[in-house]
Amino acid sequence: MRWIAVDWGTSNLRAWVMQGDAVQAALSSADGMGTLARDGFEPALLRLVGDHLQDGSVTPVICCGMVGARQGWIEAAYQTVPSSPPQAAQSVSPVCDDPRLSVSILPGMSQASPADVMRGEETQIAGFLAAFPDFDGVLCLPGTHSKWAHISAGEVVSFRTFMTGELYALLSRQSVLKHSIPDDGWDDAAFTDAVGDAMSRPERVVADLFSLRAQGLVSTLDPAVARARLSGMLVGMELAAARPYWLGQNVALVGNGTLSQRYSEALAAQGVTAQTTDAEEMTLRGLRAAFHSLSEGA
Amino acid sequence: MRWIAVDWGTSNLRAWVMQGDAVQAALSSADGMGTLARDGFEPALLRLVGDHLQDGSVTPVICCGMVGARQGWIEAAYQTVPSSPPQAAQSVSPVCDDPRLSVSILPGMSQASPADVMRGEETQIAGFLAAFPDFDGVLCLPGTHSKWAHISAGEVVSFRTFMTGELYALLSRQSVLKHSIPDDGWDDAAFTDAVGDAMSRPERVVADLFSLRAQGLVSTLDPAVARARLSGMLVGMELAAARPYWLGQNVALVGNGTLSQRYSEALAAQGVTAQTTDAEEMTLRGLRAAFHSLSEGA
Repeated sequence: MRWIAVDWGTSNLRAWVMQGDAVQAALSSADGMGTLARDGFEPALLRLVGDHLQDGSVTPVICCGMVGARQGWIEAAYQTVPSSPPQAAQSVSPVCDDPRLSVSILPGMSQASPADVMRGEETQIAGFLAAFPDFDGVLCLPGTHSKWAHISAGEVVSFRTFMTGELYALLSRQSVLKHSIPDDGWDDAAFTDAVGDAMSRPERVVADLFSLRAQGLVSTLDPAVARARLSGMLVGMELAAARPYWLGQNVALVGNGTLSQRYSEALAAQGVTAQTTDAEEMTLRGLRAAFHSLSEGA
Repeated sequence: MRWIAVDWGTSNLRAWVMQGDAVQAALSSADGMGTLARDGFEPALLRLVGDHLQDGSVTPVICCGMVGARQGWIEAAYQTVPSSPPQAAQSVSPVCDDPRLSVSILPGMSQASPADVMRGEETQIAGFLAAFPDFDGVLCLPGTHSKWAHISAGEVVSFRTFMTGELYALLSRQSVLKHSIPDDGWDDAAFTDAVGDAMSRPERVVADLFSLRAQGLVSTLDPAVARARLSGMLVGMELAAARPYWLGQNVALVGNGTLSQRYSEALAAQGVTAQTTDAEEMTLRGLRAAFHSLSEGA
C-alpha cells in the first residue's frame, strides 16, 4: 500500500513516498512551518508530493514535527510525559480540499516541570523504540535544540531541552565572534579540551567566549581551533547540565553523522560509551510505526 | 579653550563640544565605526561637529573607542596590562584634510592571558580614577560586553570581558525565545531569583533558557517575569564567573542607570555593596583628563 511519511519542521519539509515499508522517493523543500500561513500547508504538501498521488484513490500522509504546533496546519495538543511516544490514535487530521489526501499529524510531547516541549523528536524516539523495544536508559538527540530523554519500559519518563545548536549558530554567525569563527575547519584536541573545561567550570564559558575574539586580536588563533573550541564550550555546558541524565546510564545517540560523532567523543571522554543511531532513519521508523498502527486501527 | 570630546563606538558616534571643562553642546549620530570605511571617518566627524569649528583656528578632538581599532580610522595599538589607562601621550593622530581639525585617538588596553581587549572602557576607567584617584579594588562596567577590571595603585592589573549584553540581545530578539521575551516589563523578584539560581548552578542556564519558551506553551508565563528571568540568568552566569573579581573586594559600578541598578541589586544579594557611577560622566572625565595631559604635553 502506498502512503507518504512527512517530517515537517520549522525550516524544512521532507517527505518519503512509501510502498509498505520501502522508500520509493525522498523529497524535500524549504516550505517549513515557519514560512507558511494556515492555508499554505496543503498547497505546500501538494507541490512536493502531488505527482505521487493517484486520482480516484486516497493516500495516507503521516506527519510529525512543527506542522502540529499552534501556529502550524492544525494544532496537535502535546501528550504529557510520562507516556509512551504518541501513536496514530493520538493524531489529528486537518480538512483537505484535495480528495486524494488523508493527512494525520502526530502530536509532540510536553513536561509540566521543568517546563519543556518537543515536536518531532518524539517520533524519532518512537522509531528508536520500534528498533530497540527493550531499551532502558537515556536518549540524546543533538541538534538546534538538543533533547535528553529518560526512557523506561517503553515510556518517555522525563526530558530536557538545551539550546546548544541555536546558541552556536547565533554566536558564530551573528555575534562579535563571527569575525573569529569560520564555516568549516576542525581541531579534535581543541574540541575535547573545551568540553572538559566547560564541564569542570561551566560558568567560565561566558568569559571564555569573548577570548575567542580577543585571542585573534592580541596574538593569533587558528580559525579551526576557534571553531572547535566554541563548539566544545557549548557541548560541554550541555553535558554539565545533563549530567543527571547520562551519569551511570545506558546512553544512545540519535543524530546525524558529524554532530553525533562529536557528542559520542565528548561522552567517551567522560567514560560513557553511547550507541549511535541515525536521526533520519529513526524518524522514518517512527512514522512507519504510526502508519502501521493507523492501518491496524482502521 | 575650545575642544571636542568624542566617544566613537561600533554603532554610535557621540561628541561633546567643550569650553575648558564645561560642556557647551552634546551631539550624536549613527555614524558608528562599524558603518564607516577608512575615508568615511573625517566626513562623519565634520557632519556632526562641523558647525562648531572655527575658520583659522585648530580645534583639538580627543577620541576613544572603536575608532582606534584595526578596522577604524587609524589603528591605536592596545596598551598591555598591567598599566595605567592610556593617556594623550599614547594617542595616535590621523591625517585630516580639514585644517581646523587636530584629532587624537586614545588606544584601548589588552591582556595576553587570558586573552582580552577593551576599547572605550579604558577611558571610563581613566575618568573614574580622575574622580577617585585613591581607589583600590574592582570596577564593573556592565554592557554589551561587560568588563570587570582589577585596579590597584592607579593601574589596571587585569580584566575580563563577558558577552552578557550581546547574549541577551541575541536570545531575546533572534532566537526561539523572541516569542517569549517582550521589549519591556520587569519583575524584581524573578530577576533576583534567576541570578541566585544561575550563580549556584551555572550549567543549568543552558537548560533553563528553553524553559522560558516551554513554560509559555505548557502553562502560562508572565512576559515581564520571562524578561527579568532571562536577564537574571545571564547576569548570574557573569557574577558566577567573575566571582574571583568581586568576592571580598571593594567594588564600584560604572554604567548607565537601569542596568547599573540591576547589577547593584544582584551584587547586594551577594553581600557586596557597590559604589555606583555614571558611565557617560566617566567617559567625559576620562576624555577631559586626556585633553589636559595633551595641553600640558604641548
